[in-house]
Amino acid sequence: MFALPEKESRAPSTCLGPASTQDLDSNYGDGLERECSRKPDQKLLELYGVGDPTTRFSFNSSHLSSRGRVIKWFWDSAEEGYRTYHMDEYDEDKNPSGIINLGTSENKLCFDLLSRRLSQSDMLRVEAALLQYPDWRGHLFLREEVARFLSFYCKSPAPLKPENVVVLNGCASLFSALATVLCEVGEAFLIPAPYYGAITQHVYLYGNVRLVCVYLDSEVTGLDAHPFQLTVERLEVALHGANSEGLKVKGLILINPQNPLGDIYSPGELREFLEFAKRHELHVLVDEVYMLSVFEESVGYRSVLSLERLPDPQRTHVMWATSKDFGMSGLRFGTLYTENRDVATAVASLCRYHGLSGLVQYQMAQLLRDRDWINQVYLPENHARLKAAHAYVSGELRSLGIPFLSRGAGFFIWVDLRKYLPEGTFEEEMRLWRRFLDQKVLLSSGKAFECKEPGWFRLVFSDKAHRLCLGMQRVRQVLEGKSQVAEDPPACQIQEPRDQHR
Amino acid sequence: MFALPEKESRAPSTCLGPASTQDLDSNYGDGLERECSRKPDQKLLELYGVGDPTTRFSFNSSHLSSRGRVIKWFWDSAEEGYRTYHMDEYDEDKNPSGIINLGTSENKLCFDLLSRRLSQSDMLRVEAALLQYPDWRGHLFLREEVARFLSFYCKSPAPLKPENVVVLNGCASLFSALATVLCEVGEAFLIPAPYYGAITQHVYLYGNVRLVCVYLDSEVTGLDAHPFQLTVERLEVALHGANSEGLKVKGLILINPQNPLGDIYSPGELREFLEFAKRHELHVLVDEVYMLSVFEESVGYRSVLSLERLPDPQRTHVMWATSKDFGMSGLRFGTLYTENRDVATAVASLCRYHGLSGLVQYQMAQLLRDRDWINQVYLPENHARLKAAHAYVSGELRSLGIPFLSRGAGFFIWVDLRKYLPEGTFEEEMRLWRRFLDQKVLLSSGKAFECKEPGWFRLVFSDKAHRLCLGMQRVRQVLEGKSQVAEDPPACQIQEPRDQHR
Repeated sequence: MFALPEKESRAPSTCLGPASTQDLDSNYGDGLERECSRKPDQKLLELYGVGDPTTRFSFNSSHLSSRGRVIKWFWDSAEEGYRTYHMDEYDEDKNPSGIINLGTSENKLCFDLLSRRLSQSDMLRVEAALLQYPDWRGHLFLREEVARFLSFYCKSPAPLKPENVVVLNGCASLFSALATVLCEVGEAFLIPAPYYGAITQHVYLYGNVRLVCVYLDSEVTGLDAHPFQLTVERLEVALHGANSEGLKVKGLILINPQNPLGDIYSPGELREFLEFAKRHELHVLVDEVYMLSVFEESVGYRSVLSLERLPDPQRTHVMWATSKDFGMSGLRFGTLYTENRDVATAVASLCRYHGLSGLVQYQMAQLLRDRDWINQVYLPENHARLKAAHAYVSGELRSLGIPFLSRGAGFFIWVDLRKYLPEGTFEEEMRLWRRFLDQKVLLSSGKAFECKEPGWFRLVFSDKAHRLCLGMQRVRQVLEGKSQVAEDPPACQIQEPRDQHR
Repeated sequence: MFALPEKESRAPSTCLGPASTQDLDSNYGDGLERECSRKPDQKLLELYGVGDPTTRFSFNSSHLSSRGRVIKWFWDSAEEGYRTYHMDEYDEDKNPSGIINLGTSENKLCFDLLSRRLSQSDMLRVEAALLQYPDWRGHLFLREEVARFLSFYCKSPAPLKPENVVVLNGCASLFSALATVLCEVGEAFLIPAPYYGAITQHVYLYGNVRLVCVYLDSEVTGLDAHPFQLTVERLEVALHGANSEGLKVKGLILINPQNPLGDIYSPGELREFLEFAKRHELHVLVDEVYMLSVFEESVGYRSVLSLERLPDPQRTHVMWATSKDFGMSGLRFGTLYTENRDVATAVASLCRYHGLSGLVQYQMAQLLRDRDWINQVYLPENHARLKAAHAYVSGELRSLGIPFLSRGAGFFIWVDLRKYLPEGTFEEEMRLWRRFLDQKVLLSSGKAFECKEPGWFRLVFSDKAHRLCLGMQRVRQVLEGKSQVAEDPPACQIQEPRDQHR
């Protein structure tokens, strides 16, 4: 579902506007090699960008190494909005004028279900083997369970194997480990932008690996096209541009379902991107952390592990975690699936630094093997609640006349607020973001996702009705130019699904 | 307690033998600066050594980066003995001729106590805040508990502060994070050797930081001296040597109680080492993971946090974990205490990759606050069991006429098997290690701790009576030249303490 009308999807005024795919193709064919051998031209620079995380900070601590200062800078700056939020969190009773967080991509709709399941007596098992040094790949009982789980939910054509599984404390760690074992210092991954911005840190802080953005834009260039569409042509241009600047690209990161776009790649698209990677001997890191959060059945999501044959299985590495699909970002459980034993071993070697408790490994195995609960309780209820929350927020946005993108997957809507930016600049975007924060609602601005067009925001809808309604009321107040902070949500129209399982 | 008779503490024949501290002093005073500006002389080379973890492996995987291959190499090689062990683990019923592990420093004596405590109903609390993204420094409730715990057990002169605490998934991660935020790539820490060899990887795999060994030796040079004694003179020589080779040293690692020596630094020694570090503007990483595993009351252990005034508090960083003192290496809980806010923040920024589950954070807070259980049940029983196991093993060693070092702290005895090495080489040490393994008992050889003298072994005694007795029987068989693998332990003389609390 694309709620973005075509007339709204123009390029912002400060942007020269992207070339059509036809233009790219011809540029790639002849112009690029000649013109961009060292210095890419202006037009191409708008189609990719080499991230440099070190450009934005000053050195001011004498006890840290230079990289220590960069690492600290990321904490100090990236957390700005979140620090403000944590100092003034909304609480229905204690702090009704506190900040509502529609910025962090967490699913807060199912804590009741999760809490009930995780509190059952089968979850607390303490035995000697769980308290001793583990196999750093993860306990075998858990890797077996993960393999069965992924085989089933990814619909793999053949059973997946426990020896291809490495378990660790979340996908942030997995990005860090993969970047380090696949790339030399200073090498890079391609990533379609906008993208989940934290990945910049994940591959850089320890690994010193950079991201080359494959910029997508909202302009729709063909009949079958959609806004922010990734194409092989765009990948080729970005790769070529990076190479021409002397940057070695070692892989491609695909997030599917995409964050922040909510996009889903069709099996045909997936295969094209994987073939592109194979042609250039690139690793592909497929981040599928939202794979079970596809709440519109019509969408027809397909995991990369469901493909009949991977073009380059030795270079295809799949990531999944419970953070999003089981709404437990604080539980710290993620997993790698790769047929490449060297990569699995190297990541496992780093798992000394990314290990999770044996007790949690036991709990996760219990959870993942409980198919009855997952299929009959958790997933249907979670999807119904996500759908209801999504319907409410998209209805609100429509009533405000605001275009947005959302395809029925993930926890967020990609909102086009470009009409509130008269000059179409990132400074205005930042000011608008601050106005939301002043009005006590935290959103994520497009800049945080390296979006090339100022004016886009990610709005997380996977929150409980009263917070969501109040948050949306505050969003409305900002957009309608009102200054008073709403404390009581309006009569809320979210059709909460009837929970059959309470 | 030093069980090593002075006549046994000669240098091995292949070693030129270390200089006395007097020699060091005069060398340092005039000779060193002149002679060792780029090329240190042979004598000094025996007093320190710059580790280079990359010298020992070959490149053989085309899909990994060069550092990925190093990382994988560490997995493939360092785990050799452990892989053999894991394929053939001893089990009293199922595999009585399997390998007994007296190599891994784990406390297996108290799983009954731990299991009972961790299985209590107060340990399973699932609430929304624990399932959401945490404060990456650790939940405040846990940092408060850690501060109170350390204040009490480290006997700090003033209450320690939660804001100086960072919680993460073990001390391996903490070494990795501290190395990265304190050192540039290629810089180094000083470490007295023999030392817990895994630290080499912890500071190198992600951080690319090297260790400069401050070699200690068994020769006793004065009346108040003891074997493998660390002195400021030795630190000075090693630092100077490293500097003269152009290596920048950024800190000093102290393990107290020491692993593998079981040594404890007196408050006077501690202060001297800290003053040395301050003079040279070195950070000090004080690893106190065995601080509650001092089972001889007469030893008088003092945590660095008990000192009235730290010479350089902004550069003193203390590490503790539950792995050793609570016998839970599989639980993955460690903590940093530092007054340096920049360092705490930079480490916290890396904690995205070292985070532990909110559920485990809750459990650890419950455990650490349960002073009644810790003081009246766990610690007395644990110490009594450690003491009994230690008494048994040291008695066995004495009856074999084998000298050893052990001061009543930690889980291990540092055993002098030099008389079984006719040539006194590391090749012989390796052969002896393999003979133990062939006889189905896994020990750790001195080489694994960067010990400069061939023939020392670390023997872990913190295991249950039947395994320990059988393991010691097999050790005896090797040393007495017998080839049959014992399957039944002899009549065992371990005085297991009466557990009042079962």
